[in-house]
Amino acid sequence: MEIEIGFLGLGIMGKAMSLNLLRHGFKVTVWNRTLSKCEELVEHGASIGETPAAVVKKCKYTIAMLSNPSAALSVVFEKDGVLEQICEGKGYIDMSTVGADTSSKISEAIAEKGGQFLEAPVSGSKKPAEDGQLVILAAGEKVLYEKAIPAFGVMGKKSFYLGQVGNGAKMKLVVNMVMGSMMNAFSEGLVLADSSGLSQQTLLDVLELGAIANPMFKMKGPTMIKNSYPPAFPLKHQQKDMRLALALGDENAVSMPIAAAANEVFKKARSLGFGDQDFSAVHEAVKATNPST
Amino acid sequence: MEIEIGFLGLGIMGKAMSLNLLRHGFKVTVWNRTLSKCEELVEHGASIGETPAAVVKKCKYTIAMLSNPSAALSVVFEKDGVLEQICEGKGYIDMSTVGADTSSKISEAIAEKGGQFLEAPVSGSKKPAEDGQLVILAAGEKVLYEKAIPAFGVMGKKSFYLGQVGNGAKMKLVVNMVMGSMMNAFSEGLVLADSSGLSQQTLLDVLELGAIANPMFKMKGPTMIKNSYPPAFPLKHQQKDMRLALALGDENAVSMPIAAAANEVFKKARSLGFGDQDFSAVHEAVKATNPST
Amino acid sequence: MEIEIGFLGLGIMGKAMSLNLLRHGFKVTVWNRTLSKCEELVEHGASIGETPAAVVKKCKYTIAMLSNPSAALSVVFEKDGVLEQICEGKGYIDMSTVGADTSSKISEAIAEKGGQFLEAPVSGSKKPAEDGQLVILAAGEKVLYEKAIPAFGVMGKKSFYLGQVGNGAKMKLVVNMVMGSMMNAFSEGLVLADSSGLSQQTLLDVLELGAIANPMFKMKGPTMIKNSYPPAFPLKHQQKDMRLALALGDENAVSMPIAAAANEVFKKARSLGFGDQDFSAVHEAVKATNPST
Amino acid sequence: MEIEIGFLGLGIMGKAMSLNLLRHGFKVTVWNRTLSKCEELVEHGASIGETPAAVVKKCKYTIAMLSNPSAALSVVFEKDGVLEQICEGKGYIDMSTVGADTSSKISEAIAEKGGQFLEAPVSGSKKPAEDGQLVILAAGEKVLYEKAIPAFGVMGKKSFYLGQVGNGAKMKLVVNMVMGSMMNAFSEGLVLADSSGLSQQTLLDVLELGAIANPMFKMKGPTMIKNSYPPAFPLKHQQKDMRLALALGDENAVSMPIAAAANEVFKKARSLGFGDQDFSAVHEAVKATNPST
Repeated sequence: MEIEIGFLGLGIMGKAMSLNLLRHGFKVTVWNRTLSKCEELVEHGASIGETPAAVVKKCKYTIAMLSNPSAALSVVFEKDGVLEQICEGKGYIDMSTVGADTSSKISEAIAEKGGQFLEAPVSGSKKPAEDGQLVILAAGEKVLYEKAIPAFGVMGKKSFYLGQVGNGAKMKLVVNMVMGSMMNAFSEGLVLADSSGLSQQTLLDVLELGAIANPMFKMKGPTMIKNSYPPAFPLKHQQKDMRLALALGDENAVSMPIAAAANEVFKKARSLGFGDQDFSAVHEAVKATNPST
Repeated sequence: MEIEIGFLGLGIMGKAMSLNLLRHGFKVTVWNRTLSKCEELVEHGASIGETPAAVVKKCKYTIAMLSNPSAALSVVFEKDGVLEQICEGKGYIDMSTVGADTSSKISEAIAEKGGQFLEAPVSGSKKPAEDGQLVILAAGEKVLYEKAIPAFGVMGKKSFYLGQVGNGAKMKLVVNMVMGSMMNAFSEGLVLADSSGLSQQTLLDVLELGAIANPMFKMKGPTMIKNSYPPAFPLKHQQKDMRLALALGDENAVSMPIAAAANEVFKKARSLGFGDQDFSAVHEAVKATNPST
Repeated sequence: MEIEIGFLGLGIMGKAMSLNLLRHGFKVTVWNRTLSKCEELVEHGASIGETPAAVVKKCKYTIAMLSNPSAALSVVFEKDGVLEQICEGKGYIDMSTVGADTSSKISEAIAEKGGQFLEAPVSGSKKPAEDGQLVILAAGEKVLYEKAIPAFGVMGKKSFYLGQVGNGAKMKLVVNMVMGSMMNAFSEGLVLADSSGLSQQTLLDVLELGAIANPMFKMKGPTMIKNSYPPAFPLKHQQKDMRLALALGDENAVSMPIAAAANEVFKKARSLGFGDQDFSAVHEAVKATNPST
Repeated sequence: MEIEIGFLGLGIMGKAMSLNLLRHGFKVTVWNRTLSKCEELVEHGASIGETPAAVVKKCKYTIAMLSNPSAALSVVFEKDGVLEQICEGKGYIDMSTVGADTSSKISEAIAEKGGQFLEAPVSGSKKPAEDGQLVILAAGEKVLYEKAIPAFGVMGKKSFYLGQVGNGAKMKLVVNMVMGSMMNAFSEGLVLADSSGLSQQTLLDVLELGAIANPMFKMKGPTMIKNSYPPAFPLKHQQKDMRLALALGDENAVSMPIAAAANEVFKKARSLGFGDQDFSAVHEAVKATNPST
C-alpha cells in the first residue's frame, strides 16, 4: 500500500482502528491532542504529525475519530486545524459520532476549500473496533467513499454508502431508536415474567431459542436480572438519540407512538438518577415500585 | 421403545410431531376427528384408536395437539372422551395453545380421576414442527414431565419445565408480548427511514449486522417493505395475546406502557381490516397516511 | 302522589335519595339489610318493608341503590329477594353501579317473571345525592323509564334514557375514561410547571380562567399540589374503569392510545401503593422521582 | 389618565386591545406596518406614530402585539425600530406569542439600552380581546409590570406576574399541553361512545353536567361530531406547542407519557393533511379507519 493515511484522535476507538490499518500494511500518520498516546502506534510503524494541519498536508486523505462534536469541530476549525491544509485532491473522513449540524458545518467548510468530505459514523464499540468488525455508515462524496473502501475494509466488517451528508447520522438514529424501544419491550417482559411467578432466567433461555433472539437480549439480560447496568452505552445518550429520532420524525409528520412511549420511560429513568449507567438501566424505571415492597 | 404413546389431533402441527415420534422408534396410537387423516401415519407404523377414550385406554400417556380451546375441551369432556378412561397411572399432555382457563378446567378434571396432567404449549410453527425444532413450555405434574422428556426430545430442540399449570400459557404470553412490541418498533424504524430519505433495504442490512439482529426482522422485513403480509401468525391473534398479557400485568399492577401503546396500534390495524393478515401488517397502521399522499 | 315506591338500600347514597323522594311527597317503603338504618327515614314518613320481597309485593315499582354487584345480586336472587314477588305490572330500577354482566343477569331474571327492568346508574356522589343533583343514566324498559321520571326528577338534575340494558354502564365507562385521561394530563401539567420553575398555584389560577376550566381541576388541584389525596373516588376503581373502557374499545377495534397510556400510569400508582387513595393520587406516579431528590 | 401609551401592531388582536385602552380613557399612540389600519383607531382618539422608534420616543411605555416572532423581532431591531429610542425610564411590553429565544433576544437588547422589558403573552383570542377578557401572562421587570397594571386591567380580566423573562412563554406551553392531551381524551371518548352504540350528542350532554364539564368540550364537541373543524387554533400550532412542552420536560427529565402519546396522534393528524384545520381535527386521526368501512 503506498497511500499515506492520516489519523486524528487516538482514544479507545481511534487507537484500535489505526492499529488495524497499520497491521494490514497501510502507512499511517497519527496525531492526538495528548501526543504521548502516539507512541504505541509508532512502535507499530506509524509516523507522527505535529498538528492536524501537518497530518493533512502530508496525507492524501485523513480519518478523524474524536470523542464528541466539540472535539470534532476544533480539530477542523482551530489554529493548526484541518482547514489550513485541506485542498483540492485531499479528502477528510470524520468517523466520530456527531449530529447532522456538526457534520454539515464541517462538510461545508471543507468543500469551500476544494476538499472532499465523508461522514462515516460507526456502529459498534471497543471490541468490534479491535476486531475490525465495525459497521460503517458513510455519507458524502461518493468518490472519496470509493477511495476509502480498502481502509474501511480492515476497520469494519461492512461499510454502507448512504448518499448525502447527514444520512449517516440519520441511519444511526433510526437504528438506535429501534434498539431503545426494544430494550423497553424486553424490560417489560422481564418484569411481567417475574410478577407472574415465572423465572426471568427461563424467559431469557426461551427468548434465546426463538424468532426474536438477538445479541442485545443475550448480552444485557443476565445483568439486568441482577439489577446491574455496567455502562457500555450510557442511558442519557440513548435518551438523547430517542429524542433526536422523534424530532426527525416530527419534521416529516411521522407518528411513532412506541418510540415516544419508550422515550418517556428513559426520561423517567434519568429522573431516577440512572442517566450515567447503561441504557439497560431503564429496567429500573420499568419495575420501579414502592421501595418498601 | 416399549412405551405406547397416544396422539390426538393430526392437523399440520400434530401430524409433523407424531411423525417425528414414529421416526425415532416410538410406538404411537393416533386419533383424529377425521379418521382418514390417520392413514399416512399408519403407513409410518402408527396404530389407530377409534376414539380419544380408546387411545387413552391403550396408552400409558397421551399427547394432544388440537387447533383451539373448544377442540381441546371436547376431546376431553365429550362422549368417548379422554375423561372416560383416564385414571391413576395414566398421563395426559396437552400441547395445544389454550388459555389458562381452559388448561385449568382440563387439569382439574384429569386430577379428579386420578390421572396426571401437563400443559405443554410450543413456540414455533410448521417448519420447526417438521424439523423437531419446537420449543416446549411445559407446566403441571413434574413426574409426567420427566416421563415425557424422551418424546419432547424428538419433537423439540428444547423443553422447559415451568412449574404449576398455567405457567406454560403465561410464558407464551410474555414472549409474544415482547415480540409484538418489537414488531411495532421495527415498523416505526422502517417508516422513519423511508420518510427521512434512507433506503429501507439498507436499514435491514444494517440491522442484520448489529446488536439487535434477530430472525424476525430478517424474515419479515423484506416482505414488509413490499407491503406484503402473508399470514404466518394472524394479527388478530397477536393482538389478543397483547391484550391477555396486559391483563396479566393488570392483575399484579405491572405498568407496561410500551406493550399498551403497541396493543393500541394493533387495534388500529384491526380497524383498518388487517386482522386476518400476518401480524407484521401492523406496518400498515404505523405508516397509514392520507390515501392521496 | 298516590304511587307507592319501594327503596332498597339505605347507604350514604340511598338514604339521601329516598329522603328526597319523601320530601317531595312520594310515599316510600324502605328496606335495608341493617333494619335500624330505616328509622330516620320512618321519622320522615317512610314505611318499612321486612324483606326485599315484601317491598316489591307492596309497591308498583322499586328502586335499589346497593353498594356493589354482589349486594345487587343477592337482593334480587336470594331468599326473600325481589324475584319472589316481581311480576307483570311491576317494575324494578337498579341505580347501583354494576357492570354490564350483573345488569344483564338481573334484567333477564326480572323479564322471565314478567316484570320490567331499568338500570339507572348515577353520576355524582354524596353531595349531589343530598341536593337532588345527580345525573341519571337510565337504560332498559322505556315504559318504566317514563313512569320513573317524576322520581328521577327529585333525585337528579337530569336523567337520560339510553336505550337497551347495558348502555347506562357503558356511558359511565366512557365518561370515567375521559376523566381518567384528563386527570393524568392535569398531573403532567402540574409536574411540568413545577420542574420549570413556575408556581403550581398560578397554573391552577390560569387554568381556572381559560377554555379548559372544569370542576375537577378546581376541586382536586389544591390538594394535589399538597400531595394530599383524600379518597372520593378510589384510584383502584378508576383504574378498573379505564381497563373496562379499553376492553369495550377492544371489542370494536377502537384504538385509544391516550386512555391506554393513562391506564398504565394508574397501574404504576397502584404498584406504588396508592390504590385506596383518591384517583388524583396518580399524581404520585407522574412525579415519582428518586426518593432522595 | 395622563400617561401616553404606545401600541405597535393593529391586527385582529392589537386593534381590539388598543380600542379597549382608548375606550377607558388612555391616551394611545398607534403604529402599524400598513398605516391605513390606524385610521379607525384615530376616529376613537388615537394619535399616529410614523415608525416604532417614533412611538417609543413619544411614550413612557409601548405595547406590541405582532403576529409572529419575525415581526416581533423586526419591529425592535430594524431601522426605525424600538431599539433606536428605547432608553432608561422607558418600558417595552411585548404581548405577542413568541418563543423563549425570541423573547430573550429582545429582552437583552432592551436592557442594554437601559430600558425595561416585559413579555406578556395572552390566553384568549378575538372575542376575549374585544371584550377585555384576556388572561395576561407577564414576566420580566416587576416595576414595569406594576406600571402596566391599569392597562392590563382594561385589556384582560386577569393578569399574572410570573417572574423572569421566559416564564410567560413557558406557562402558555404548560396550559396548551394540558389542553392538547384533553382534546385527545375527549376525541377518544366520542369515538368509543359511537362504536359502542351510544349517542355522541348524549355523551356531550352528560359531560356538560358533570365534574369535567369545560368550555372547550362545549364549544368543540358539536362541530367534532359533524366532522367539522373550522380553524380557531390550527392543529400544526397545537402540535408545535406539544413538541415544545415535551422538550421543556426533557430538559428537566420530566416523564410525560400522556402528552407524548397525544403528540404522536397530532403528528398522525398532520400526516393525514389536517395541519391547517382546527386542532380538534385530531379527531380524524383518532377515528381513522378503513375508508371503506
